Amino acid sequence: MASNSSGGSDRQRVAQQRLRIITGHLQGREEGDSTIIAAECKAEGSQTYVSREEGKTVPRRRQEIMKWNGWGYSDTKFLFNKKGQAEFTGKRYRLSGMIIPALKEWFEGTFGASMQHKSPAAPVLNSGAVQPPTLNEAFLEELKSTGIPFSHDAEDRVYRAHGHCLHEIFALREGKVGRVPDMVVWPNCHDDVVKIVELACKHDVCLIPYGGGTSVSSGLECPTEETRCIVSVDTSQMNRILWIDEKNLTAHVEAGIVGQDLERLLNESGYCTGHEPDSMEFSSLGGWVATRASGMKKNIYGNIEDLVVHVKMVTPQGVIEKSCRGPRMSTGPDIHHFIMGSEGTLGVVTEVTMKIRPMPEYQKYGSVVFPNFEQGVACLREVAKQRCAPASIRLMDNEQFKFGHALKPQVSSMFTSFLDGLKKFYVTKFKGFDPDRLCVATLLFEGGREKVLQHEKQVYDIAAKFGGLAAGEDNGQRGYMLTFVIAYLRDLGMEYYVIGESFETSVPWDRVLDICRNVKARIIGECKNKGVQFQPLSTCRVTQTYDTGACVYFYFAFNYRGLSDPVHVYEQVERAAREEILANGGSLSHHHGVGKLRKEWMRETVSNVGMGMLQSVKDYVDPKNIFGNRNLL
Amino acid sequence: MASNSSGGSDRQRVAQQRLRIITGHLQGREEGDSTIIAAECKAEGSQTYVSREEGKTVPRRRQEIMKWNGWGYSDTKFLFNKKGQAEFTGKRYRLSGMIIPALKEWFEGTFGASMQHKSPAAPVLNSGAVQPPTLNEAFLEELKSTGIPFSHDAEDRVYRAHGHCLHEIFALREGKVGRVPDMVVWPNCHDDVVKIVELACKHDVCLIPYGGGTSVSSGLECPTEETRCIVSVDTSQMNRILWIDEKNLTAHVEAGIVGQDLERLLNESGYCTGHEPDSMEFSSLGGWVATRASGMKKNIYGNIEDLVVHVKMVTPQGVIEKSCRGPRMSTGPDIHHFIMGSEGTLGVVTEVTMKIRPMPEYQKYGSVVFPNFEQGVACLREVAKQRCAPASIRLMDNEQFKFGHALKPQVSSMFTSFLDGLKKFYVTKFKGFDPDRLCVATLLFEGGREKVLQHEKQVYDIAAKFGGLAAGEDNGQRGYMLTFVIAYLRDLGMEYYVIGESFETSVPWDRVLDICRNVKARIIGECKNKGVQFQPLSTCRVTQTYDTGACVYFYFAFNYRGLSDPVHVYEQVERAAREEILANGGSLSHHHGVGKLRKEWMRETVSNVGMGMLQSVKDYVDPKNIFGNRNLL
Repeated sequence: MASNSSGGSDRQRVAQQRLRIITGHLQGREEGDSTIIAAECKAEGSQTYVSREEGKTVPRRRQEIMKWNGWGYSDTKFLFNKKGQAEFTGKRYRLSGMIIPALKEWFEGTFGASMQHKSPAAPVLNSGAVQPPTLNEAFLEELKSTGIPFSHDAEDRVYRAHGHCLHEIFALREGKVGRVPDMVVWPNCHDDVVKIVELACKHDVCLIPYGGGTSVSSGLECPTEETRCIVSVDTSQMNRILWIDEKNLTAHVEAGIVGQDLERLLNESGYCTGHEPDSMEFSSLGGWVATRASGMKKNIYGNIEDLVVHVKMVTPQGVIEKSCRGPRMSTGPDIHHFIMGSEGTLGVVTEVTMKIRPMPEYQKYGSVVFPNFEQGVACLREVAKQRCAPASIRLMDNEQFKFGHALKPQVSSMFTSFLDGLKKFYVTKFKGFDPDRLCVATLLFEGGREKVLQHEKQVYDIAAKFGGLAAGEDNGQRGYMLTFVIAYLRDLGMEYYVIGESFETSVPWDRVLDICRNVKARIIGECKNKGVQFQPLSTCRVTQTYDTGACVYFYFAFNYRGLSDPVHVYEQVERAAREEILANGGSLSHHHGVGKLRKEWMRETVSNVGMGMLQSVKDYVDPKNIFGNRNLL
Repeated sequence: MASNSSGGSDRQRVAQQRLRIITGHLQGREEGDSTIIAAECKAEGSQTYVSREEGKTVPRRRQEIMKWNGWGYSDTKFLFNKKGQAEFTGKRYRLSGMIIPALKEWFEGTFGASMQHKSPAAPVLNSGAVQPPTLNEAFLEELKSTGIPFSHDAEDRVYRAHGHCLHEIFALREGKVGRVPDMVVWPNCHDDVVKIVELACKHDVCLIPYGGGTSVSSGLECPTEETRCIVSVDTSQMNRILWIDEKNLTAHVEAGIVGQDLERLLNESGYCTGHEPDSMEFSSLGGWVATRASGMKKNIYGNIEDLVVHVKMVTPQGVIEKSCRGPRMSTGPDIHHFIMGSEGTLGVVTEVTMKIRPMPEYQKYGSVVFPNFEQGVACLREVAKQRCAPASIRLMDNEQFKFGHALKPQVSSMFTSFLDGLKKFYVTKFKGFDPDRLCVATLLFEGGREKVLQHEKQVYDIAAKFGGLAAGEDNGQRGYMLTFVIAYLRDLGMEYYVIGESFETSVPWDRVLDICRNVKARIIGECKNKGVQFQPLSTCRVTQTYDTGACVYFYFAFNYRGLSDPVHVYEQVERAAREEILANGGSLSHHHGVGKLRKEWMRETVSNVGMGMLQSVKDYVDPKNIFGNRNLL
C-alpha cells in the first residue's frame, strides 16, 4: 500500500490535536498552586495554533502604535485639514484617507464650536510629571528570577494608568498624571500569572490586571490612597488560542487576546466567536469576562455569559475553575458568575473556553427609516416579541441620524450623490417624513442565504406595520462601519472645547420611551443650570433588544468654553443623568460595568444583603486586597 | 356621549392593573426588615389574578391528595389487577383507567420479577414511629401571635421530611421514620416569611424551606445531627400570581406556586412560562430557583436562569433583591446566581418575576426511528450544531424504546393494532432495522403553524442523513405523555422487589457516546460485583441538546430479592455510576442538584477556591446556620 504522506501527516495532526484537546479537558489543577514553580511557560516549544509574533496586535510597548492621550491608533485621527475640511487620517479603516465634507458644518452648528477656538492637548507626555515608582525590592528580586518581563519606564506606566473615561483623557491632554502603576509586568501564560500573584501576596504588592485598557468605568484608575507598590499585570502577551475543539465547537484561549485577533485567528479555521463589542480592536477576553461584556451580534452569539464554557482565574487563594466543561449544570450557585463581573477585584482571568460557531455563510445589512422615534421603538419591541431580531438591530434617534449623515465620506461620483438626493426627496417630500423627527434603524442579518432573505422579509414586514420604510443596505452598512471610528471623534472634539461621553443602561420595554425622553431632557436642563454656554448634544440609540427590555445608549457632549472647571460640570451632569436613568427604571449599567465611577449606586442596585455577599467573597478570596483597584465595593 | 360602562370598567381595570404593576416595580425594600411587622398579609383583600382557593392544587394537608410513601396522587397508581393485567388507576391522566397489556410481561422479563414475590409497603404511617417534636417554646409563643398557620401533627411532619430519593421512599415503605421536622408552618406571603425568619434567627430555630417536596438529592432530608427545633417552611399556600405585565411580558409570582397551577393560570390570560420540568405537577417556583431547574421545552423558553428577571429571597441578614428589572446588566457579579442553586441554604425565595410568552399557536409532536443509538446521537448533535432543535428533542436508547412499547395502553380498535403491526413490519423487515439496536427520538415543535412545518421539514431532513425514519406523531405524543406517569412506575416496582432511580448529567458532545456506554456497563458490572441476582435495567436517554453538549438521563433498576441490604447495594452502584460519569467528562448534575446526596464531589467540581467562595457567602448570610438543611457544602 503506497503511503500517502499528506494523509499520514493529516492523521498525525488530527491525532495530536485530539490529544491536546483531551489533555486540556483532563488537566487537573496543579496541587502545588502555592509554590512557585520555576517551570517553563507552556508557550515555548509547544504546538499551538498561533505563533507568538503572528498573533500580536498589541506589542508590549503599546506606545509603538497607540495614542498616549486619546483613543486608538496613533496613525489615525479626525482633523480639519488646511482647506478646513474634516479628514480621517491613516490607512486602517474604510473611512481612512477620506474627506468628510459635512462634518465641519455639523460640528460647528451642533456645538457652537469654531476653528478659531482651539484647546489643544499637551503635545507629548512629560515623563517628569510621572512620580518615580514606589519599588518593592523583595518583590522585584523574586520577580527577576522568574524571567517574566517587566518595566519601570514612566511611559509604560502612564499607558496603563487609565481607561477612557472623559476625565482620564482630559487630564492626560492637560499633561496631568496622577497615581500610576509603579511597574508593569507582562506574563506570557497562566503559570506566569500564578507566580506573579504568589509573589504579590508574599510581598503585599497591589495588582491591577490590564487587558485592553478600554475601561469606561474608571476601572483602571489607580487608587490615589494606595501606598503599596502597584503592579499593572498586562495580559496582552498572553494571547494564544491553545486549542480549537471542532467536535464540541469550543476554543480554549488565553485571556489576553484582543477581539480582533481572536476573530481573525478563528476565521482562519472557518470559525468565529461572533463576540463583537465596539471596543473589540483593543479589549481583551479577560476584560470581557471581568466586566460582563456584550457584543453587537449577541442576538446570534450571546453575551459573554452565554459564550463562556470554562474559566480559569488566579486568585490570592489559588486557582478557581470548574472541573467540567458540560454545557449547563446544577452544582450549587454558578461560580462562573462569581468571576464574571468581578472587575479585577478577585484575581486575573488567564484562560477561557468559549463557544465558537462556523462563520456565517452570508451577511446582509439593512436600514429602515421611521417617521419618528416612538414608531421605531414600537417596531423593535414587536421584533423582540416575535423573537425574530436580526444579528443586530439598532435604532438611532433623529439627532444621531443627522450626525450619521454628517459623517458621510465624500462621494466618489455625481451619480451616488444624485441617488442620495433622490432618496432624500422620496423619504421627506414624497412619503411626508419630517426630517426633524425621522429616525433610522440599522440591521445586520447573518446565516444561511435563504434563511437570511426569509428573515429579512419578516422584519421588514413588521417594520412596515410601524410606518417603517426600507432604506437600503448602504445606510445599514455605513452605520455599522462607523461603530469603530466614532470613538476617534471625541479626540477631535476635545481639540475645540468640546467634551463628551457615552453611557448606557438596560431598561424594561415599557420604560424605554420615558427614559430616552427624560434623560435627554435632564441632560439639557442640568447643562443649563451648571452654566454651559452652548446647547449640548444629547442623543440616544436603542442598541440591543431582549425579551423583557432593551439596551439604550446615550451620547452627551457640549462646548465648555467659558467654564472654569469643565470636567466637574461634566461629572455633575453625568451623575444627574444616571439618577434620572435609575428613577426611570433603568439599570446602573448594561455592559460598561461599575468600576469606581458608579460605586455609589451599588448598594441600592443589589441590596444590603447583595453587597454583603460580594464583600464576603472579596474578603475570603483576597483578604489583603492584593487586587486593590477598589472597583465595585 | 353615551357612557360605555363595560368600556369604563375595562379602562378602570387596565388602569388599576398598570398601577399595580408600577407599584410592584417601584416597591422599595422595607427599611424595617429587622422588626416584626404585624401587618396584614397583602393577600387578604388585595386584588390579584387568583383567589386563594382557586389557585390551590396542593392543600395545606397534603395527605388529602398525595401519597405518604410514594410518588404523586393517592388516587393514582400502577397495579396488576385480578386478571394479572397492568392497570393505571384514577382519572387524572390520559393513561388513567387503561389497561397496559404488555407491561407485565416486560416487567417480569426485564427484572426476573414475579407476581408471587411481593414486597408490599407498610399500609399506613404509624404515628408512633414519629419522634415527638422538639419544641422551641419561645419561638412558638411569638409565632402564635403572627397568625401564621402551623402544625405539630406527626403526619404533617413526616410528609415534609423527605423528597423522592430511593432510600427515602424505601424507608417510608418499611415504616421507618428518621429525623423529621418538629413543626410545619404555612406562610401566606412574603411578609409572613420575613416574620418566620426573624423569629427563627431570634430563637435559633432551624428552617428548611419546602416547596413541592420533589427533591431527588436528599435535599429535604432533615440532618440527624440537628438538635434544634426544625421548622419546615411550607410555601404551598404562598402561590398567587401578583401581576402580569403584558407590556414587558413578565409575571410576578409568589414562589410557592407549583408548575401546573402557574401554567394553567397564565394560560387563562393567553400566556405561559413554558417551563415544564417533569416534576411540574408538584414542584414549586421557589424550588426551581433554589435548584437551578430545567424544563422540557428549554429550547424555546430557556432554563430557570433564562426565565428569571427578578428574585426576592428572605435571609437571616434581610431581604436580598435587585432594584431593577432590566433585561441584562453589568453591575458586578450577578447576585441572582448567588441565589439560584443555593438549595435552601441561604434563605427562602418568596417572589419571582419571570418571563412569560404568548401561548404557542400550534404544537406538533413527532418521532424518528434510528438504526442505532450512535446515529441518533450524531443526528441530535447535527441538529444542535445547526441550532434548529425543536421545542423538545429526546433520544432514547433501545431498552427505553422497548420499555416505551411495554407501556402502550390497550388499543381501542383492531385497526390501530393492525397499523402498529404494519409499522413494525415496515421498520424492521422492510427497512432492515434491527429491533435490538434501533432507537427512537421524540420531538415536539411549537410556534406559528407555517414556521413549525418548515422547522419540522428541516429536522426530518437532517434525521434522514443519519438513517432516521419519521415514525409519526403518535409515538412522539405518547413519549411525552408518559413523562408524567413514569414516576408512578417505581412504586409498582417496589411492590415486587424492584428498586431503581433516575440520575442525570450534562456532558460535552464528544463524550456522549462514551458516557452512555461506559456508565451503563459500569452499572451492570457493579451490580454483578455486589451480588445482585438478576440482570439490572440500565438504560439512558439524551434528553436535552446544547451548543456544546447534551443532558443524558439514566434509569437504573434491579430486582433485589436475595439481598440483605438492597438500599446499600443500590447506593454503592449509584456512587460508582457517578464516578464513572465524572471520569467520562460528565458533570455532577445537569438539573437535579447536589443536596446532600452529591456533596462529596462538590470540592472537585468547583475547586477549593469555589468552595471557599460558597462557604464565605453562607457564613455571611447565615452565620447561625438557621437554614440548616446541610445541602451543598
